[in-house]
Amino acid sequence: MRQPVITLTTDFGLSDHYVGVMKGVILSIVPHARIVDITHELPAYEPLEAAYTIEQAYRWFPKKTVHVAVVDPGVGSTRRPILMEAAGQYFVGPDNGIFTLVAERETHKVREITTEKFFLKPVSRTFHGRDVFAPVAAHLAKGITPARFGKPVDNYLRLGMTKPQRTARRAWTGMILRVDRFGNLVTNFHVDDFGKQIQQKFDMAVGMTTVGKLATSYAECAPGEVFVIVGSGGYLEISANKASAAKLLGCAAGAPAELTIY
Amino acid sequence: MRQPVITLTTDFGLSDHYVGVMKGVILSIVPHARIVDITHELPAYEPLEAAYTIEQAYRWFPKKTVHVAVVDPGVGSTRRPILMEAAGQYFVGPDNGIFTLVAERETHKVREITTEKFFLKPVSRTFHGRDVFAPVAAHLAKGITPARFGKPVDNYLRLGMTKPQRTARRAWTGMILRVDRFGNLVTNFHVDDFGKQIQQKFDMAVGMTTVGKLATSYAECAPGEVFVIVGSGGYLEISANKASAAKLLGCAAGAPAELTIY
Amino acid sequence: MRQPVITLTTDFGLSDHYVGVMKGVILSIVPHARIVDITHELPAYEPLEAAYTIEQAYRWFPKKTVHVAVVDPGVGSTRRPILMEAAGQYFVGPDNGIFTLVAERETHKVREITTEKFFLKPVSRTFHGRDVFAPVAAHLAKGITPARFGKPVDNYLRLGMTKPQRTARRAWTGMILRVDRFGNLVTNFHVDDFGKQIQQKFDMAVGMTTVGKLATSYAECAPGEVFVIVGSGGYLEISANKASAAKLLGCAAGAPAELTIY
Repeated sequence: MRQPVITLTTDFGLSDHYVGVMKGVILSIVPHARIVDITHELPAYEPLEAAYTIEQAYRWFPKKTVHVAVVDPGVGSTRRPILMEAAGQYFVGPDNGIFTLVAERETHKVREITTEKFFLKPVSRTFHGRDVFAPVAAHLAKGITPARFGKPVDNYLRLGMTKPQRTARRAWTGMILRVDRFGNLVTNFHVDDFGKQIQQKFDMAVGMTTVGKLATSYAECAPGEVFVIVGSGGYLEISANKASAAKLLGCAAGAPAELTIY
Repeated sequence: MRQPVITLTTDFGLSDHYVGVMKGVILSIVPHARIVDITHELPAYEPLEAAYTIEQAYRWFPKKTVHVAVVDPGVGSTRRPILMEAAGQYFVGPDNGIFTLVAERETHKVREITTEKFFLKPVSRTFHGRDVFAPVAAHLAKGITPARFGKPVDNYLRLGMTKPQRTARRAWTGMILRVDRFGNLVTNFHVDDFGKQIQQKFDMAVGMTTVGKLATSYAECAPGEVFVIVGSGGYLEISANKASAAKLLGCAAGAPAELTIY
Repeated sequence: MRQPVITLTTDFGLSDHYVGVMKGVILSIVPHARIVDITHELPAYEPLEAAYTIEQAYRWFPKKTVHVAVVDPGVGSTRRPILMEAAGQYFVGPDNGIFTLVAERETHKVREITTEKFFLKPVSRTFHGRDVFAPVAAHLAKGITPARFGKPVDNYLRLGMTKPQRTARRAWTGMILRVDRFGNLVTNFHVDDFGKQIQQKFDMAVGMTTVGKLATSYAECAPGEVFVIVGSGGYLEISANKASAAKLLGCAAGAPAELTIY
């Protein structure tokens, strides 16, 4: 029997029952589902970090995987639930831009989820993860076709400013997308767009610091040295060997990063 | 093949090997079990928060699910292991009141677990999660009937003070059961008992603050505004839009909450 | 169908997508695998605590379980990936001593993993958990024999100083291997080696404190009292009833512990 995969990405944390409840709802509908936690520690109210996390995760999962993302400060308001099809996989969550970075990379189709018979009733005003997104994901995993959940829309929300802006002939302003557990500063400069530039002499300015060294592995640098490296997800990262670049540079997600080529 | 579901709710945290070891024990006995973490971040020595968490979670799981709960400061003493049947599901844990809130809602039968052949030997004095509760849960999930684990008892421990006490004709004193990750203060006023009262003018006093507004969604309130809302689990919660009510009010689990109707 | 078990032990934390990505890679190769998290909260750059965690966990898992361990400050350098067979199970990780405590207890064979067709290409320089260890584990779980991954080696790295050293006829110097979530100080004095000695009058000196009491359960001691107990994993632990011995004694992992017998 095929065991469909459902991933969960939320800001619910791990101290409460919320994530467990979503899994109970899913297993009640599709008992043979495989449920994988991507993370539940995303910052609340911050769709860009969620968008980055989902974009980093989805490509490593099998076709037909259903990715559920719930960072949803607008729960209970008029924001819509959506279902996106992209890369042979499904993405279910609120219409707040959370799938923007996947949509920028993949051909995609977005539907507004309107078929209420797939929801748990009564739908609460505060926990759509349980009442809307988990049951929709479970029914998708069970084989219900996307078209049965609602009609395509093209006015779904996309986050702006996800890519670096060119500010001069040889200069771009980007940002720190995310600081990871090791203190690596993940920028929004992607190797597909900037791989050639950083083979030349360059400066990456973040906070009060300017980094000009490109490394190919952590281990080739001295402990505590700060350098730029092509991260495992394709973005340029500012890192330090056996130390937190975030602490050394005093930077957090959202901070600007400026690239200059010489 | 049916894949039985076992949930785990503990105070073991996620830094140590304890939870993984319980899963190894379970999978060694019932390889096709589905194991779901509810949370492992419960405060140690605090059965009421554990009781609330389990009560919030169980109803969303399929029939026959086995819920294992281990917040167990009395491990190694004479406190008994128990098995409760309620709502077509099973609850396995120490006899310290941890299943009180489920027992208040559901017809139930409690057994003392005495059949030692289902334990791992030798039973340690410090880790019954591994040696008693995990193997008992696994054998239950495998299909062993509850009667084979031990005889019914009715002197099992129930937590007191779980419901608000009436202090005047229009006033009740309850408490904060739990503060969740978003800083929502979950009270022990249940909508089944107090849903009508809060349709009238009311005050909910917590700490130094009195809240008189009832909201139906977070988004209808101004950022930082504090209000009462019927939470997704049926209890009245004191919340703030895009902010932590717990921080705004300086309150924690166990604090009193006073409801007055006008 | 057999559902092979794969465990994960890392320092990746739970805030990022890294662990979820490893699971996606595994399920893409072996869709029916059961994946169990041991912990992802290990301190970075500290193979001894990782070694302890894995040694505590593996014995509770079924035969053929594949244990993946990634605490890997040398990623991208010349350190080798290894595959160890021991106790009818498999261990996959970097050659940095992470499996030392298992190897000290079990007959074992270690191979250097060199067969690159089992890796994800291109292999990144910063995330071998995804590109090397996860796919190797998945192929092992799928039934590929260990010999196909590479040749046996015997110059693999072993951590030193894992056992207490005798310093006088009746005195040994050991260390704190690990502080657990409850503040229990796990020493490297194993009951197999020191079980008899502690039946006599003894002192265990840690930090500024000397502990002379042996307890058999937490509950037999007064709240806050500090004592030695044989922990559930076989090591002597310094504990306090309903309190953190680590806080009371001001000690952390790596601190020396001195045992004297009278």
